[in-house]
Amino acid sequence: MKPYIHKVQYYETDKMGITNNTNYVRFMEEARNDYLAQINFPYSKFEDNGIISPVVKISCEYRKTTTYPDLIKIRVRILKVNRFKLIVGYVMTVKGQIVCRAKSSHCFMTNGRIINMEKQLPDFYRQLKAEEKRGQQNN
Amino acid sequence: MKPYIHKVQYYETDKMGITNNTNYVRFMEEARNDYLAQINFPYSKFEDNGIISPVVKISCEYRKTTTYPDLIKIRVRILKVNRFKLIVGYVMTVKGQIVCRAKSSHCFMTNGRIINMEKQLPDFYRQLKAEEKRGQQNN
Amino acid sequence: MKPYIHKVQYYETDKMGITNNTNYVRFMEEARNDYLAQINFPYSKFEDNGIISPVVKISCEYRKTTTYPDLIKIRVRILKVNRFKLIVGYVMTVKGQIVCRAKSSHCFMTNGRIINMEKQLPDFYRQLKAEEKRGQQNN
Amino acid sequence: MKPYIHKVQYYETDKMGITNNTNYVRFMEEARNDYLAQINFPYSKFEDNGIISPVVKISCEYRKTTTYPDLIKIRVRILKVNRFKLIVGYVMTVKGQIVCRAKSSHCFMTNGRIINMEKQLPDFYRQLKAEEKRGQQNN
Repeated sequence: MKPYIHKVQYYETDKMGITNNTNYVRFMEEARNDYLAQINFPYSKFEDNGIISPVVKISCEYRKTTTYPDLIKIRVRILKVNRFKLIVGYVMTVKGQIVCRAKSSHCFMTNGRIINMEKQLPDFYRQLKAEEKRGQQNN
Repeated sequence: MKPYIHKVQYYETDKMGITNNTNYVRFMEEARNDYLAQINFPYSKFEDNGIISPVVKISCEYRKTTTYPDLIKIRVRILKVNRFKLIVGYVMTVKGQIVCRAKSSHCFMTNGRIINMEKQLPDFYRQLKAEEKRGQQNN
Repeated sequence: MKPYIHKVQYYETDKMGITNNTNYVRFMEEARNDYLAQINFPYSKFEDNGIISPVVKISCEYRKTTTYPDLIKIRVRILKVNRFKLIVGYVMTVKGQIVCRAKSSHCFMTNGRIINMEKQLPDFYRQLKAEEKRGQQNN
Repeated sequence: MKPYIHKVQYYETDKMGITNNTNYVRFMEEARNDYLAQINFPYSKFEDNGIISPVVKISCEYRKTTTYPDLIKIRVRILKVNRFKLIVGYVMTVKGQIVCRAKSSHCFMTNGRIINMEKQLPDFYRQLKAEEKRGQQNN
């Protein structure tokens, strides 16, 4: 899987001279959607089928500040998946140094009900399970 | 009509130490929606009736920089309205000094077609016409 | 302490029709800075004295979606403070229903070094300690 | 000059289902900074030399809506440059169709004073003049 690159934009910095912390959550969304597209399940395909995936939980640990025009490399990994929940991990680096580690939890829903991914999205579920396993081996 | 107050947030500043210029367009949206609510046509009511109002054009002239935690007072005025188009003006001040002057043009649409406001939104149109007149007198 | 009110803006929604999850971290920043101003230690005063306060960690748990033009009421509480670290809690509600619970951790720095708040910011430290105690009693 | 590509992010859409209009001004900043880097005058170099370049004026004409995950191709051109002012033009297309045309005006400042670019930034000025000429020929 290719890591996602986010170039810090000027409007993402704040008067402290650094990338404002609130933007990293946006980088997570960018990298996650890029990852889904890479495993051939782009988020737009879910939406086209009436499926949405709300974010249930996020956490972010800031290690080093970044600023314009840094290139942030984001590695995405499937940390855990079961029938109802998906946990995604993110490691963000600039020039090999970790700047932020983050996690997000998601479910998938249709018509206001949580989807059992194993049953209702079997191909996607299998792929995520394989990615979860690969992630554990690389750990 | 009460002016709209936007308090500049820290995340709206950039590394130049000032409010990033791209945010003023957001302040325009905030002030415009506040104005519509004040004249009893909140934007959500249009949406509930299947009407949307895309922005056709905007322009912004920056006069003085602002920064966190400035309070920007925004006066909204109906500059011009005809059956198919609405032009809104914005004067933004901090402590009495103009920091930005702006304009935006809008149309109203339903089912992908532009609405003739005089015919299809007569109450709204009349109100806007009255506001347009009031604005010219105050000029 | 007065709760902070954030009115969800149109540009904060996304095509799912709800407030995009990444914005809640911004609401946290808004509410936290409002809180600091209410206890007479506005963030700008720290900056004027060469002190910055980077965010070290954040977490967010989303309970219910919100959308334009909801009013989100945010209660801020000092969850924990010691000489080097401050943990802030946030409970966000719309019409009495919890929509998001969040936490953020902070340190204070000057010239690239972490400040011992008890020594270098004694008035602030005492105030935070009192707030921490008050929070525990209200629990 | 290579056009700049902005991939519309999910958080940049709004509940109308389209890219919120306020984001295009951010795409302009992204494309402009990419352009300056391509002509070997990255904005960070100015900042390192104590020079800032505030935006004086912007305008945007929206032609077609875009949405996640569109790729917006942005062509930047130097429309006009004189000793004190620079006007930049932007044509944004998706799959060959124009979605937005925009302009921005800038000056360059140091220590609170506007710079005479011909005198104080002669290499930059010459380059911009050449780009302005090239733009007119391509018109």
